[in-house]
Amino acid sequence: MVNRDVIPSADLADCLARCPAWELEGREITRTFEFTSFPGAIDFVNAVAGVAEDAGHHPDIDIRYARITLRLTTHSKGALTGADFEVAERIDNLGVEPVG
Amino acid sequence: MVNRDVIPSADLADCLARCPAWELEGREITRTFEFTSFPGAIDFVNAVAGVAEDAGHHPDIDIRYARITLRLTTHSKGALTGADFEVAERIDNLGVEPVG
Repeated sequence: MVNRDVIPSADLADCLARCPAWELEGREITRTFEFTSFPGAIDFVNAVAGVAEDAGHHPDIDIRYARITLRLTTHSKGALTGADFEVAERIDNLGVEPVG
Repeated sequence: MVNRDVIPSADLADCLARCPAWELEGREITRTFEFTSFPGAIDFVNAVAGVAEDAGHHPDIDIRYARITLRLTTHSKGALTGADFEVAERIDNLGVEPVG
């Protein structure tokens, strides 16, 4: 199970450095992936869903045709936690390279 | 292929009456589906994706754990068209009953 300890402010820059494709927006981190087709985008959503279910920690997912935006935060803590960065890293490790 | 003729204002009430679970929001129609589990919600997203790809008309899809919100509009027309209501009806015909 993932670690839901709140990330201390002093450690946030280090966490973000490990996920450079993700952007900090308030208490969330977000990343958008562009695909060349809608089915390709849906395949990615299914891969993300597998990561999320395995981790027990689920990003918000917005599907806009072939553009997928993910947002991670830990609602129960009202803050970013280790779980958010762990899931972000696992999604990055799916090896998907955005085209846009 | 679906019909992308703009719905005349005078016909909008009739179109909405055929999709009573959908709400009109500006130039969009929207419906939210609640599921009892995240995998169940993802199964529904895949079914919606199949309808969308078959129709060549794709709703915006927001995944919030087990709550899925769909939005339909025809961006190329800046308006609601026959395509939006046809896809809404096809999604309704998937037979999914929201739990929430």
